[in-house]
Amino acid sequence: MPVMVAGVGMTKVGSHWDKNIIDLMLEASLKALEDGNIRELDAIVVSNMVADWLITQSNLASYLMDYLGIRSYGVRVESACGSGGMGIHLGYKLVKSGARNVLVVGVEKLTDTLTPDNTSAMMLADDWVVGFNMGSTFVSLNALALRLYLDTYKVNHEYIMMFPVICRDHAIFNPYAQFRRKITIEDVKRSPLIADPLHLLESSAYGDGAAAILLSRNKGDVEIIASEISHDKISLSSRENPLILKAVKEASYKAYRSANIAPSDIDVLEVHDAFSITGILSLENLGFAKLGEGWKLVKNEEIRLNGTLPTNTFGGLKARGHPVGATGVYQVAEITLQLRGEAGDNQVDGAKVGLAENIGGIGTSAIIHILRKI
Amino acid sequence: MPVMVAGVGMTKVGSHWDKNIIDLMLEASLKALEDGNIRELDAIVVSNMVADWLITQSNLASYLMDYLGIRSYGVRVESACGSGGMGIHLGYKLVKSGARNVLVVGVEKLTDTLTPDNTSAMMLADDWVVGFNMGSTFVSLNALALRLYLDTYKVNHEYIMMFPVICRDHAIFNPYAQFRRKITIEDVKRSPLIADPLHLLESSAYGDGAAAILLSRNKGDVEIIASEISHDKISLSSRENPLILKAVKEASYKAYRSANIAPSDIDVLEVHDAFSITGILSLENLGFAKLGEGWKLVKNEEIRLNGTLPTNTFGGLKARGHPVGATGVYQVAEITLQLRGEAGDNQVDGAKVGLAENIGGIGTSAIIHILRKI
Repeated sequence: MPVMVAGVGMTKVGSHWDKNIIDLMLEASLKALEDGNIRELDAIVVSNMVADWLITQSNLASYLMDYLGIRSYGVRVESACGSGGMGIHLGYKLVKSGARNVLVVGVEKLTDTLTPDNTSAMMLADDWVVGFNMGSTFVSLNALALRLYLDTYKVNHEYIMMFPVICRDHAIFNPYAQFRRKITIEDVKRSPLIADPLHLLESSAYGDGAAAILLSRNKGDVEIIASEISHDKISLSSRENPLILKAVKEASYKAYRSANIAPSDIDVLEVHDAFSITGILSLENLGFAKLGEGWKLVKNEEIRLNGTLPTNTFGGLKARGHPVGATGVYQVAEITLQLRGEAGDNQVDGAKVGLAENIGGIGTSAIIHILRKI
Repeated sequence: MPVMVAGVGMTKVGSHWDKNIIDLMLEASLKALEDGNIRELDAIVVSNMVADWLITQSNLASYLMDYLGIRSYGVRVESACGSGGMGIHLGYKLVKSGARNVLVVGVEKLTDTLTPDNTSAMMLADDWVVGFNMGSTFVSLNALALRLYLDTYKVNHEYIMMFPVICRDHAIFNPYAQFRRKITIEDVKRSPLIADPLHLLESSAYGDGAAAILLSRNKGDVEIIASEISHDKISLSSRENPLILKAVKEASYKAYRSANIAPSDIDVLEVHDAFSITGILSLENLGFAKLGEGWKLVKNEEIRLNGTLPTNTFGGLKARGHPVGATGVYQVAEITLQLRGEAGDNQVDGAKVGLAENIGGIGTSAIIHILRKI
């Protein structure tokens, strides 16, 4: 039984101090329901990482159903930064098991929170004994990975900094993007070192946002042809080689196999570039470049809209933004717009097949979706 | 395709100051895998409500998979106090959509936590604007419901207090129970008034615990013949009649219909008696008594092991314990033991069909499972 994307909806990513988490969920949900012209749902899946911790609100699926006024049932899933992709996977499985229409809503409220410490909040994704309690943060861990990459492969850091520079260019025409101002390599270099050698503009920012997609077994013209997941050790310190994203490697391998395509068939790509280095490692571990050579795709500007591998075509995590639990849903919504030919100024000509890579924790889990225009 | 319970595993409920949340999950998981004699899993679902808030640990499915060393994929679901039942529902759907073996693990760590305020933690399940922020607690809300019940139906409070008294009797022979000491009506009356008219011994306590069940499409001799969910308004203040658990009423109606049985066919029952009044309301809204008459089943001791409706046969939430996200899994594990004839001193003779009622929030959602010995 095919699983189609029948509708999408997004809020702008940013500091929504005038909106509660329920407002964000409702805005994205109603847009997706209107886009898909569907009024009856069999289930709602809400993807969220840290509303419990930051705004003392859990039970989000019941909360949304109450305000949405739709009779159905709902569940919230959490899988750290991969919550969005995981929610889509479960929605996909619910359709496979007989549901007609399932709404998947990713949401995160990271600004205007009761607990202002977002950096700690993100570390809830790691093993608290060896991570949170030891004072490591995702910024410091990714800085270590970047340092190791630069030293191992003797790469000019500027080629890695170009990743966010290009993604920012893509966000200029995205009305939902958090950052729509162009930046240069010089801007990245001049931005504060937040954990040597990582600069501020190499890191995604905190933003609020919600995205929704409507999955259906008989409506829509974009099909999910693969939904695959793999896991790695939860902590970076347990891995043999921190530059290999084993979960990404395995999940994408399974996805290519289940969709019966090769990486070269991908017309449009969304990677989970929480940090510049994560973007590069993703290109490599998804099979688009050899290990240690992902930066070449960036240096040669192949990841631009008119390149051979258009990547993060609406800005990715550092420009569209990274409202954590919502990110995986934004990615699939954006690919849907591309495949429908509704990406406006960001349209990749003739895009037929797209891949979204969503990561939970520091490479702990990877959720890969491949979509195709039918 | 039938969905069977192929294995169960539980930890004792209590104050496990010597065990981290991963220890609890592992203990229950390994027992269930051994009980089912299964080594390969297609998915793991972890049910948990508040580890984020209380012990700064999310991403529990990845965490468990890392330590369990099983190649598969995992997701954590949260649906307040109904997380356990919701996890079972999703595991059930995963089997329906093609998975062979799915492990569902419910876990909660409520003692020895970083944030000692469990009473606030529970309120994350309510709408934070009208609940948490206004200072209401689940204790005070349930005290209001109890007061309304006593006034509306002119019932002697002692008949409601008998509910926990009988449940405590059932826990005496349960090695996994939190409280195994017999209590009397006099004990309940003498216990502190925690929110007038509710006494301490009418409320479930905080305890740590984990329970696991292994779902399979071809192993085991206990079948899940219904898995149904309904939702109500998230907050008690929005409901027309707080004494009607609409979610329980609707979900159980759907479950009876889908299993093609009547309430009178149920041989063994587990209800979500977070408070004495919740136990009574559950009996009524599940269809075992008319509204306002649930207390009669208790007064007449019909809910005892040798009564016409053996209920909470291992002690229920107030004696076995209520490790929130794990409770729904304990319930189904206990019913499985009854149907297998492995309930020891708590065995209900000839039990063939059992029902488990798990509630999320203050009646916000209800997850009903009906199981049958094949």
